[in-house]
Amino acid sequence: MMKNNRITKLFNIQYPIIQAGMVWVSGWKLASTVSAKGGLGLIGSGSMKPDLLREHITKCKAASSKPFGINIPLLRGDAIDLIKVVIAEGIKIVFTSAGHPGKYIDELKTSNITVVHVVANVKQGLKAQSVGCDAVVGEGVEAGGHNGPDEITTFCLIPQLADELNIPVIAAGGIADGRGMAAAFSLGAEGVQIGTRFAATVESSAHPEYKKSIVNASDTDTVLILKKIGMARMIKNIFSDEVLKMEKDGADDIILREKLGHKREMTGIFEGNKEQGIMEAGQASGLIKDIPSAGELFDRLIAEYNSVREKL
Amino acid sequence: MMKNNRITKLFNIQYPIIQAGMVWVSGWKLASTVSAKGGLGLIGSGSMKPDLLREHITKCKAASSKPFGINIPLLRGDAIDLIKVVIAEGIKIVFTSAGHPGKYIDELKTSNITVVHVVANVKQGLKAQSVGCDAVVGEGVEAGGHNGPDEITTFCLIPQLADELNIPVIAAGGIADGRGMAAAFSLGAEGVQIGTRFAATVESSAHPEYKKSIVNASDTDTVLILKKIGMARMIKNIFSDEVLKMEKDGADDIILREKLGHKREMTGIFEGNKEQGIMEAGQASGLIKDIPSAGELFDRLIAEYNSVREKL
Repeated sequence: MMKNNRITKLFNIQYPIIQAGMVWVSGWKLASTVSAKGGLGLIGSGSMKPDLLREHITKCKAASSKPFGINIPLLRGDAIDLIKVVIAEGIKIVFTSAGHPGKYIDELKTSNITVVHVVANVKQGLKAQSVGCDAVVGEGVEAGGHNGPDEITTFCLIPQLADELNIPVIAAGGIADGRGMAAAFSLGAEGVQIGTRFAATVESSAHPEYKKSIVNASDTDTVLILKKIGMARMIKNIFSDEVLKMEKDGADDIILREKLGHKREMTGIFEGNKEQGIMEAGQASGLIKDIPSAGELFDRLIAEYNSVREKL
Repeated sequence: MMKNNRITKLFNIQYPIIQAGMVWVSGWKLASTVSAKGGLGLIGSGSMKPDLLREHITKCKAASSKPFGINIPLLRGDAIDLIKVVIAEGIKIVFTSAGHPGKYIDELKTSNITVVHVVANVKQGLKAQSVGCDAVVGEGVEAGGHNGPDEITTFCLIPQLADELNIPVIAAGGIADGRGMAAAFSLGAEGVQIGTRFAATVESSAHPEYKKSIVNASDTDTVLILKKIGMARMIKNIFSDEVLKMEKDGADDIILREKLGHKREMTGIFEGNKEQGIMEAGQASGLIKDIPSAGELFDRLIAEYNSVREKL
């Protein structure tokens, strides 16, 4: 299942292993390293202005001649400006998330760009397929960062997407080692998108304190907060405790937005404020025990996957 | 992984496939059918008085000479009376859940009973191991019925339990076909416990309307309610909508207990009241499309598993 499937062909890559686009984490260093190893690196443009995205694209091209892609959150007011950069730079792979998949599909497809949309339920998957996306990422509720309101887990989401869609499904959420990769392929995925595990690597641009928080997290140390205004999974801290208490007491949208304020993700992930920032991370953080280079991690993932497959 | 592992040896069974003990669902008919096929059937004593449990044990023994077990929820005030029946009847396999695993371990082990405890995080798993349990069921938040407050998914829970425990891990939550079985074994489980899929079989003692609700459910049709007073996953209905609204508005424990009332599970599962009962079911309900006999289902699971394993 790992080699020469629809996902490796779609992206022209060796292994169907995709490093997730992550705000404040996945710039050109991480993406080019993963792509050079034969996977697909994604630059996460969610935390970048158009000029900075252009700079990352230029550096990524210089660092590796292999295919790489850009993740674009469609809800951003200036998403079209990011898309213009992507088209002008001749990028051929775009992952869209957080918004309607049809919003800019015409602009992207006219430029011969392969478009993958991130979905969290079957209905979203069917919509992405119907507007012309080439594949979907099915993201389970165990994933770090923003999540769908239905809270479907990777275990339940992937086989249902695989049954209902004709386009290939990439599994995301909870995958941090070769066991998770084998599980995802067993469930019907043809590729895996790995986020938090790559966030805790040398090439990740996140703050060292953020990486340490992932390594120190146990199985029970992430939590979903702010369900009323766009849920996110993060590592528990003082801020999340405070928000959870407000939510339990029935706080409304306005009060929660006020509490959230601005740039909490930057504060947590990029500036390393462990108690007041949002430290986006998946539930698989408990499986992550070190901060290797992304290349070393990539080799490890493949070795682990092969070992699991033999034992099955 | 499927044959001749620590779980098949522990229970002296052919396949490490366990049919979950489920209130109002798994009596002697379902348990004896699964055991006769070479798996492990469990009688769910949670909805039975001691005399009724004795009757089910007698009938199960008559229907199959193969090993079967009893699931006992430890939080029940009269759990010790159920345990006395189990010991008197010479039962050799008990699954305990919903309570401290050490509560009756001495009584059970003195009678040479193999004891398996259901856990939802690593700490609970270590505790079960330390008091002398022979294995654990690691149950992800996608499972139907009662769930742990940490909401850890099967994908993230199983590998962390497998890493931290010496005793074998049985995976539960989200497993409804051979793909899920292969995924569970990939993640490090040595057995699978399957609930909702067996609830929608001919031999399940649940109401036909409950079985139909499972078959009709889509990926987004289950929900976790009553987190403040002991969470349960159920199929969405008028009752769950009402509870969720109360919870959003900050209802406290007392008001929620009053709303819950008594015997909601019986009303939903056994009496088939689809709108006011609690229809406990897992998130994998969306994968369930028919109501086969348990024996036919068992053969299908094994065939699907072998097919997935070959493709991996």
